[in-house]
Amino acid sequence: MIGGGIGAFIGDAHRRASRICNDFELVGGVFDVDYERSKQFAGNEGIDPSRCYETVDSLIKGELALPAVERMESVSIVTPNALHFGFAKNLLNSGFHVVCEKPMTMTVEEAEELENIVHDQKLTFSLTHTYTGYPMVRQMKDMIASGTLGTLQRIDAQYYQGWINSIIHGTESRITGVWRLDPKHAGASSCMGDIGVHAFNLIEYTTGLEIEEVLSDLNPVKEGVALDLDGTVLIRFGKNLKGVIRASQVCGGEENNLTIAVYGSKASLKWSQENPNYLTLLSDSEPTKIFKPAHGYNDKFAEMSHTMPSGHPEGIYEALANIYKGTAKSIRGEEFTPGEFPTVHDGVRGMKFIHAVVESNRKDNTWVKI
Amino acid sequence: MIGGGIGAFIGDAHRRASRICNDFELVGGVFDVDYERSKQFAGNEGIDPSRCYETVDSLIKGELALPAVERMESVSIVTPNALHFGFAKNLLNSGFHVVCEKPMTMTVEEAEELENIVHDQKLTFSLTHTYTGYPMVRQMKDMIASGTLGTLQRIDAQYYQGWINSIIHGTESRITGVWRLDPKHAGASSCMGDIGVHAFNLIEYTTGLEIEEVLSDLNPVKEGVALDLDGTVLIRFGKNLKGVIRASQVCGGEENNLTIAVYGSKASLKWSQENPNYLTLLSDSEPTKIFKPAHGYNDKFAEMSHTMPSGHPEGIYEALANIYKGTAKSIRGEEFTPGEFPTVHDGVRGMKFIHAVVESNRKDNTWVKI
Amino acid sequence: MIGGGIGAFIGDAHRRASRICNDFELVGGVFDVDYERSKQFAGNEGIDPSRCYETVDSLIKGELALPAVERMESVSIVTPNALHFGFAKNLLNSGFHVVCEKPMTMTVEEAEELENIVHDQKLTFSLTHTYTGYPMVRQMKDMIASGTLGTLQRIDAQYYQGWINSIIHGTESRITGVWRLDPKHAGASSCMGDIGVHAFNLIEYTTGLEIEEVLSDLNPVKEGVALDLDGTVLIRFGKNLKGVIRASQVCGGEENNLTIAVYGSKASLKWSQENPNYLTLLSDSEPTKIFKPAHGYNDKFAEMSHTMPSGHPEGIYEALANIYKGTAKSIRGEEFTPGEFPTVHDGVRGMKFIHAVVESNRKDNTWVKI
Amino acid sequence: MIGGGIGAFIGDAHRRASRICNDFELVGGVFDVDYERSKQFAGNEGIDPSRCYETVDSLIKGELALPAVERMESVSIVTPNALHFGFAKNLLNSGFHVVCEKPMTMTVEEAEELENIVHDQKLTFSLTHTYTGYPMVRQMKDMIASGTLGTLQRIDAQYYQGWINSIIHGTESRITGVWRLDPKHAGASSCMGDIGVHAFNLIEYTTGLEIEEVLSDLNPVKEGVALDLDGTVLIRFGKNLKGVIRASQVCGGEENNLTIAVYGSKASLKWSQENPNYLTLLSDSEPTKIFKPAHGYNDKFAEMSHTMPSGHPEGIYEALANIYKGTAKSIRGEEFTPGEFPTVHDGVRGMKFIHAVVESNRKDNTWVKI
Repeated sequence: MIGGGIGAFIGDAHRRASRICNDFELVGGVFDVDYERSKQFAGNEGIDPSRCYETVDSLIKGELALPAVERMESVSIVTPNALHFGFAKNLLNSGFHVVCEKPMTMTVEEAEELENIVHDQKLTFSLTHTYTGYPMVRQMKDMIASGTLGTLQRIDAQYYQGWINSIIHGTESRITGVWRLDPKHAGASSCMGDIGVHAFNLIEYTTGLEIEEVLSDLNPVKEGVALDLDGTVLIRFGKNLKGVIRASQVCGGEENNLTIAVYGSKASLKWSQENPNYLTLLSDSEPTKIFKPAHGYNDKFAEMSHTMPSGHPEGIYEALANIYKGTAKSIRGEEFTPGEFPTVHDGVRGMKFIHAVVESNRKDNTWVKI
Repeated sequence: MIGGGIGAFIGDAHRRASRICNDFELVGGVFDVDYERSKQFAGNEGIDPSRCYETVDSLIKGELALPAVERMESVSIVTPNALHFGFAKNLLNSGFHVVCEKPMTMTVEEAEELENIVHDQKLTFSLTHTYTGYPMVRQMKDMIASGTLGTLQRIDAQYYQGWINSIIHGTESRITGVWRLDPKHAGASSCMGDIGVHAFNLIEYTTGLEIEEVLSDLNPVKEGVALDLDGTVLIRFGKNLKGVIRASQVCGGEENNLTIAVYGSKASLKWSQENPNYLTLLSDSEPTKIFKPAHGYNDKFAEMSHTMPSGHPEGIYEALANIYKGTAKSIRGEEFTPGEFPTVHDGVRGMKFIHAVVESNRKDNTWVKI
Repeated sequence: MIGGGIGAFIGDAHRRASRICNDFELVGGVFDVDYERSKQFAGNEGIDPSRCYETVDSLIKGELALPAVERMESVSIVTPNALHFGFAKNLLNSGFHVVCEKPMTMTVEEAEELENIVHDQKLTFSLTHTYTGYPMVRQMKDMIASGTLGTLQRIDAQYYQGWINSIIHGTESRITGVWRLDPKHAGASSCMGDIGVHAFNLIEYTTGLEIEEVLSDLNPVKEGVALDLDGTVLIRFGKNLKGVIRASQVCGGEENNLTIAVYGSKASLKWSQENPNYLTLLSDSEPTKIFKPAHGYNDKFAEMSHTMPSGHPEGIYEALANIYKGTAKSIRGEEFTPGEFPTVHDGVRGMKFIHAVVESNRKDNTWVKI
Repeated sequence: MIGGGIGAFIGDAHRRASRICNDFELVGGVFDVDYERSKQFAGNEGIDPSRCYETVDSLIKGELALPAVERMESVSIVTPNALHFGFAKNLLNSGFHVVCEKPMTMTVEEAEELENIVHDQKLTFSLTHTYTGYPMVRQMKDMIASGTLGTLQRIDAQYYQGWINSIIHGTESRITGVWRLDPKHAGASSCMGDIGVHAFNLIEYTTGLEIEEVLSDLNPVKEGVALDLDGTVLIRFGKNLKGVIRASQVCGGEENNLTIAVYGSKASLKWSQENPNYLTLLSDSEPTKIFKPAHGYNDKFAEMSHTMPSGHPEGIYEALANIYKGTAKSIRGEEFTPGEFPTVHDGVRGMKFIHAVVESNRKDNTWVKI
């Protein structure tokens, strides 16, 4: 992993996800520009100190010196955006597979150069447009591909957030100080580059179509802001198919309100990121249908993307992980909050409940003390 | 881990959760009553063959023979219910911490014996009432404890499922063949023992109160079924506080519809497992309020139980894990479905989109080709 | 109409509803025990003063003296509960059809006596269990009757309100002063008599079954309250069919949360009064289906009970009535709030919008001023 | 009333609404271009035949001949769009108040001419943008006016329907035959003129702002269709405030999905027509708040626009009207469906239920037969 050291949110998400899928083991990396902090992080994670490198170049050199069987296979790049291209290029050219956060690069030219390298090197390059990993997004893709909607007639995607409000409505000095609002670090766009592109990707992913042209109206919203924080994009596909992408970072109270609606001549599909287990199929002639994961009516691709039986949101793993976390604190003798994990006393209470219930029923529905 | 071998659902959930929280490493166990299958599982997971034991007794013996620093610290029991007690007792008496699936035991006496052992040994015993790990359940607990609801007046919890319909409406021979419906293996109760007890636990967890007595009416629903598949339990706390627990395994189409509503003299709280990120606070005099994770208005306990920023359901880790899974298949040269992970070409498309959008806006909102 | 004078809420609802269905005209009544207030009300409503009677007896006498073609055909009784029986009995025995608010009487004996009178007189007696008039409740009834659910397995109905909280948590003197809490005026029960009976009626209406026996646990909730404000009722039908009715007036923040869920061997149906246009059909093997009014897939009974095209909640009539109300104020020269009805200026704005939009599109998507 | 005769949907809605608000009485009109059908309609409605006129001119002449106190005060125009202007102009110039369906006219010039006439005549002209009559829309208007949202930052309104799909995906001959798709009858626009303008009106109504300029991209969707059936409109207000209006008649399965979201520097408000009783207030720092009608926290304007206590959707009047309708059928001896109104037997059942429940509770929670 490049980046993702102490305090980094997205690097932590990558590590959790790779542990869940259980196909990867974190063996080394360059976790911070500050080598001391990088080593400190490696220590916390139990990583072999010899594989905590100071630079990407030294990582490449060090890993290539190892026997192929021990060598790092894949590198995840979770650094600030401007660094993606250089690191990805070097790593690919040195034979490493790459997982890269989005946006992939700063310019179209860099993006196309990476595409050529990947093609020539025959390596795997994975861009983490995470939303395409949801089971019901995959179900949507399959249903559209199989013709459930008929001829597509309108496409509408939205990504609304509000978090930047607290920044732009602070002091002027603060506005200019935030790197997200500085074109040098953020690139050509704030809102469209950070979240509009997710809506774009979701459209192309689910429909299998490519958007042909765009017309946009962007809004910096406030004096002194150099980049778009809000905008609407008219989109056109082939003849008679149009749509819209709406994105904003100033919709106060919206969290990650990413939605997509695809309307066809026969039926329509709608999905929303904040309730990702519900896929809605609308039609003029039949009751609205709600598709959920872990059912035989879904396509194979959706079903292999889900690991829980129906009715348990995937977040239940985190709930169970919280129980394990509390248990670990207790085992280590660390302080923990009462209620962090159910104890043997909860087990006793539960057994008493079950037996009292059965007894009450057997005794012709009379009261039984627990 | 005891149990949880090839094909076991709940063991897999425990492993995923323990990998997410990153405080545990699976180093050995007794994964199957069939030793060959157990060894096969250990091989798949990369577990040292010498720590794949044939029995729990040999596990205890083998681990105790290791230096303390290498020894297994905690054992997760995910076997069928009837085996929980014996294994937990032996492990605790040998000095191991225990994580145990629910129901903890088959009888109240066994449960109380375990409680005594845990007390004497001063070990950690964790019962996986998973639902208490959700951030908004913990927020609910804190809000009730801090008096937000005033004096409690009514408590209503429900756990409705429908999966057993397909079994009982099959052939007669099939009914008797399912272990869940056989008192020898399932214990005193099917519906109340398996899911009613979760509703019970959630009530005691969130309110901090103990239910004093119950009156139940259980229903086997179909001729030839020996256990309850459905039931309602009237519950009483102290003076003037009553409520109800409703549970069923024959509510066709219900998945894991666990809900809890607690009504007080000042306000009320409602939570539903299938949409676990929403906690609803009702009052007579103010607009209904929806609490969600990752906000400053939550209590500390809820916030430490959540790892994503607001608006991303925790299931997003699984979405990202799916991307990593597809990437792994590609790296290994395995077959994968197009769309299992976003490629460098998606990255090129994204960069083209962002730059076309910015260009259209700069050119006074005219169309730009992608 | 008997009762329903100045300030009476339920009488007003009856008048609005009878005007909507356009089969009734209000020609007279006894609107208040205070004859002066009754006459004042009649004057406000433009009712012939000679038909504003002082008592029900004088109404009967007066109307019978009129030629049959002019005579009142039907009388709506919207008085306090204790008066229903006497008035209904007299009116029926004098040959008038009766519409009566619920609860119909104070005792079972009175109820049975009325039933006999109606039977003998061959008159129409209509009890306003209003919820059975919703289109989707009627659709539910039809779907159950046609066997969509298979054999019924569980029935769960709820009616939760919270309005009585503000009364019981006021001063002691206030508690005793509220007639709802006084057995002399409210009858045998507060919560079950006022709202539990609606849940009961909805069960028998939608399923076509009769509940055979009940077991209840009621709660006065607070010291000094003589009647139930909260309760749970276990219900039994024939063999292997059970269920529960839950009702409360102390669930703070709940408004009129009346719900019903009927679970069968093949599928399940759920409906909620606060969102009455949605009927949910659940099954284990198919996506959840949402039925809504004004669609060809509904049965005939549901469709004849709806007057709006799909997608407009019935409440849209009240929205339009508000526009008409504002218009009337303006016509009469009364004061009105800006925005009470759209003016000709709004019409000008609308036309400008439409033409500007068409022009922008024709001019290759350029900006057009409004 | 002009128009609105036999089989006319919108005329019926106007009559129902005016009966609900109880400020209007239908005394005459020109109900159909076919005078025989018009007279037939007047007969059905019990209207004085002498006031069922053949033309608007004869109506004006006839009514002006009546004493002022008997004369029609206000005329509702519910004819096809192209006739609105001429009738409204004549009626206003003759001194009648006018209620007019939207779109008000066919051209901007006609609209402005009407505005001038209304201004000069000092008459009331009411345009039925019905959605502005919803209580929560009025609450939204008041909250924005009082500064709850701070400086507005983004406005997004949508009106999606799907009903035209069934027409355009029929045969070619059918397409040309539908008047909605014929510019001569429908005017400059189909989708924007019929429904886009509602979204436009809702924006200007709730925010109190005027949209300054628009940029649109419209879509006829199918070969051979002359008008827009779908489109997106970029909208601009003053500096730094932009937004979008999205409208479509080809979103299959959408009914009347009219929504509005207004985002400000401090908070945001969202409302949806299909669930009109819920107004959502979002902010970055507080729980999401849901405002509903009939609560003390609402502004006065919203509260005077609502007639039901909290928790009963306004559609409950129609439910009660359905009960009255069934009762009327029974009184008249017409055929009715069992279940069209609750009978005295339902009343008996209800009383038995209440008394059995009370008895069970008194007898220490034992079973009591009904």
